[in-house]
Amino acid sequence: MRRLEKLSTETVTITEVCPRDGFQNLPRVLDTDVKVRVINELIDCGFNQIEVSSFVHPKAIPQLQDAEEVFEKINRNENVTFRALVPNLKGLERAITSKVEKIKLMLSASDSHSLSNANCLTAEALEGFKPLVEKCSENRVTLTGSISVAFGCPYEGKVPLKRLIDICKKYGELGIKEISLADTAGMANPVLTRKVVKELYKQFPDFKFSLHMHNTRGMAFANIVAAYEEGIRDFDSSVAGFGGCPYSPNASGNISTEDLVHGFEEMGISTGIDLDKVLETGRCLGKLYNGHVDSFILKAGKNSDLKISPKQQSKIGN
Amino acid sequence: MRRLEKLSTETVTITEVCPRDGFQNLPRVLDTDVKVRVINELIDCGFNQIEVSSFVHPKAIPQLQDAEEVFEKINRNENVTFRALVPNLKGLERAITSKVEKIKLMLSASDSHSLSNANCLTAEALEGFKPLVEKCSENRVTLTGSISVAFGCPYEGKVPLKRLIDICKKYGELGIKEISLADTAGMANPVLTRKVVKELYKQFPDFKFSLHMHNTRGMAFANIVAAYEEGIRDFDSSVAGFGGCPYSPNASGNISTEDLVHGFEEMGISTGIDLDKVLETGRCLGKLYNGHVDSFILKAGKNSDLKISPKQQSKIGN
Repeated sequence: MRRLEKLSTETVTITEVCPRDGFQNLPRVLDTDVKVRVINELIDCGFNQIEVSSFVHPKAIPQLQDAEEVFEKINRNENVTFRALVPNLKGLERAITSKVEKIKLMLSASDSHSLSNANCLTAEALEGFKPLVEKCSENRVTLTGSISVAFGCPYEGKVPLKRLIDICKKYGELGIKEISLADTAGMANPVLTRKVVKELYKQFPDFKFSLHMHNTRGMAFANIVAAYEEGIRDFDSSVAGFGGCPYSPNASGNISTEDLVHGFEEMGISTGIDLDKVLETGRCLGKLYNGHVDSFILKAGKNSDLKISPKQQSKIGN
Repeated sequence: MRRLEKLSTETVTITEVCPRDGFQNLPRVLDTDVKVRVINELIDCGFNQIEVSSFVHPKAIPQLQDAEEVFEKINRNENVTFRALVPNLKGLERAITSKVEKIKLMLSASDSHSLSNANCLTAEALEGFKPLVEKCSENRVTLTGSISVAFGCPYEGKVPLKRLIDICKKYGELGIKEISLADTAGMANPVLTRKVVKELYKQFPDFKFSLHMHNTRGMAFANIVAAYEEGIRDFDSSVAGFGGCPYSPNASGNISTEDLVHGFEEMGISTGIDLDKVLETGRCLGKLYNGHVDSFILKAGKNSDLKISPKQQSKIGN
């Protein structure tokens, strides 16, 4: 809960979510082999955790219908946790067959977002998790919870803090104490982020919260810094900034991994990620999509990429 | 020096710099009448201060060769300070003839940037300000100083804090105690920004510092929040995010006014700016440039622009 004033010796953990959140938002379906190649490259970048896919109905998200094949083909190793999203029991069975070691459950902080996304109220979504929790326990699969639109709903606007507290309580009753707070529509600001994180840690001191921030309105990095100052050490990001905001089609989405890693490292906070390798993967992804990337560092280079001072100095004056 | 934890009743002052920094970076010269129309629209947005132009040699920056005509044609009024950049005595004479009320002097924190930009060392630039200070005093023109590449030099990298302290001392000896700290190449981070601002206020408690941040590496808003927490209340920004980073041609430049105003207002900090009017001006500027804008809010809309929840709810599941 300290202010970031001097270089820290602490570290953060960054979960790469491009293979799920990034690919999910792409306009055309990628070949499975391309996905596998990208994920294998990401494994080499040093991430501790990668969100690989989502076991949803193929008709809901055709892009992710190859979840089983992707899990089968990637270079899984014990240093990396390979996570997947699961919406229901059918999806969980598929994930267990694919030997997925960590499952993320999703629900929405607001009822209108929950209705539009999962066709049920938030409370109903929580009820529906019970059989999944039991099945995970039987199969020794780790579970993590998440709360979409935690910092603002594109339909309702502000989300009362009490909603988040109530949801975390219910998650706790289900035995889930690791929760990802997602700013799905990019509506957070640093004051709100600080307030939410502070209050949630106060109410749930034994929980582990992580942050999944979208840069829709240019404040993601500032929000992450505020959350770091309040104790959060786990953050999601997406290579090349892949993964738009579904409510603002032409806007930015996930904060890019390059920007997050570069920002933390510049502040003296270690990520354990090989930024140059991430940049290389980002460049390759950009080529697949006609050069379109949504990553500041991919465009501007790192701070350490110094320019050569012009030899012929021109005088600007009258 | 307090942390931004709750809604504040404080206000900030935002200086619009698009007419100088934004236009200066455009690939083609704008008609003077277009500039005048844009500036008059900006005056109506509620800015207290607008950086109108630069009295440099026409050959150095052809885009700004019409500084006199712009100053003559805009709707000047007593509620707005109209500022201009001046590099030397010749420029100052032109500015005085145009009845410019506030002059900004520029120098670089690093010698290599100073050499490439002004063909002299930083210390020489400071020496050169003496006759300008005298002339401003004689003509009752307000002076403000600035320090380019204050948070990092594209040629040298890190800038020692001692350089900034020495420059501020010299500025103080010249009687200049209002200083704009510019992150010209977008190399700042929140830890560095906090450290620099804290130390400068400690050394120069009677100075007024302002911040001119570029969003080259995605950290401008986070840096501004850190500086706000350390006491800075004056910030530059550019409508539509016009004004690139000269050292990273395809990267972002000035933080956009829309994003800065929206961000502050969302945090409960009043700017006094009519955001909708700024957005309208930004949209018009975008049309002039084939829709290219570098502003999150212009692309995503404000937080308060709520979406209509889809009536036909689709179930995402297996």
